[in-house]
Amino acid sequence: MDLAFEKLGGLIPGIVQDHRTGEVLMLGYLNADALAETQRSGEVHFFSRSRKQLWKKGETSGHVLRVREIRLDCDADALLLLVEPVGPGVCHEGYRSCFFREFTTEGHPRVIAERSFVPGEVYGNQGAQ
Amino acid sequence: MDLAFEKLGGLIPGIVQDHRTGEVLMLGYLNADALAETQRSGEVHFFSRSRKQLWKKGETSGHVLRVREIRLDCDADALLLLVEPVGPGVCHEGYRSCFFREFTTEGHPRVIAERSFVPGEVYGNQGAQ
Repeated sequence: MDLAFEKLGGLIPGIVQDHRTGEVLMLGYLNADALAETQRSGEVHFFSRSRKQLWKKGETSGHVLRVREIRLDCDADALLLLVEPVGPGVCHEGYRSCFFREFTTEGHPRVIAERSFVPGEVYGNQGAQ
Repeated sequence: MDLAFEKLGGLIPGIVQDHRTGEVLMLGYLNADALAETQRSGEVHFFSRSRKQLWKKGETSGHVLRVREIRLDCDADALLLLVEPVGPGVCHEGYRSCFFREFTTEGHPRVIAERSFVPGEVYGNQGAQ
């Protein structure tokens, strides 16, 4: 099956959703290698656009994402990764989901979630992954 | 608040999720105009990458997406649009969600949902929107 990697220069967006609660946790980008490694290992891998390299989500924090199912959209240009998240949260800012802010009409983001862990205790000085 | 539109050439991905069921319905792309029009009208607008123009989701089918809440991720480069979907489904192929296929390890997509409407009766020959 051909995925439309060419639409975003070799990448395809992957929506990460908690398979139990339905909570959307984050959005990342996969290239063909990241998808293959995700399928092979059973843990979500992305391609970092800033560092230009493959990375396993949770490689520093231990907060890996175990894949339960991968779904594909009608145009084969987006993936939905249903996962079992390990640990208290996926966000490098210490939240369960990266979508912890409401985008208000006034343009002021408003935090709507409680922190679930302390980032400094998890990531140290190695940067958030 | 500055959104990171520049990372994808003026676009930001928007995940559409049913606010009641938690089902992820589709992924689309918004430019600044699409976001402004979504906020102004209360119905989801995208920027079509193929037609290079603003479009209201459901303008042909009537299956519009009423916005309940917009969330923003930690890096301000992805949106989560919590919506109330109007009509039987968002997918131009006749499904409630565009993510109606499982991506199997063998590479053969497997349909895992039932059709919720007949595309030809909704879209006619005008193309799917």
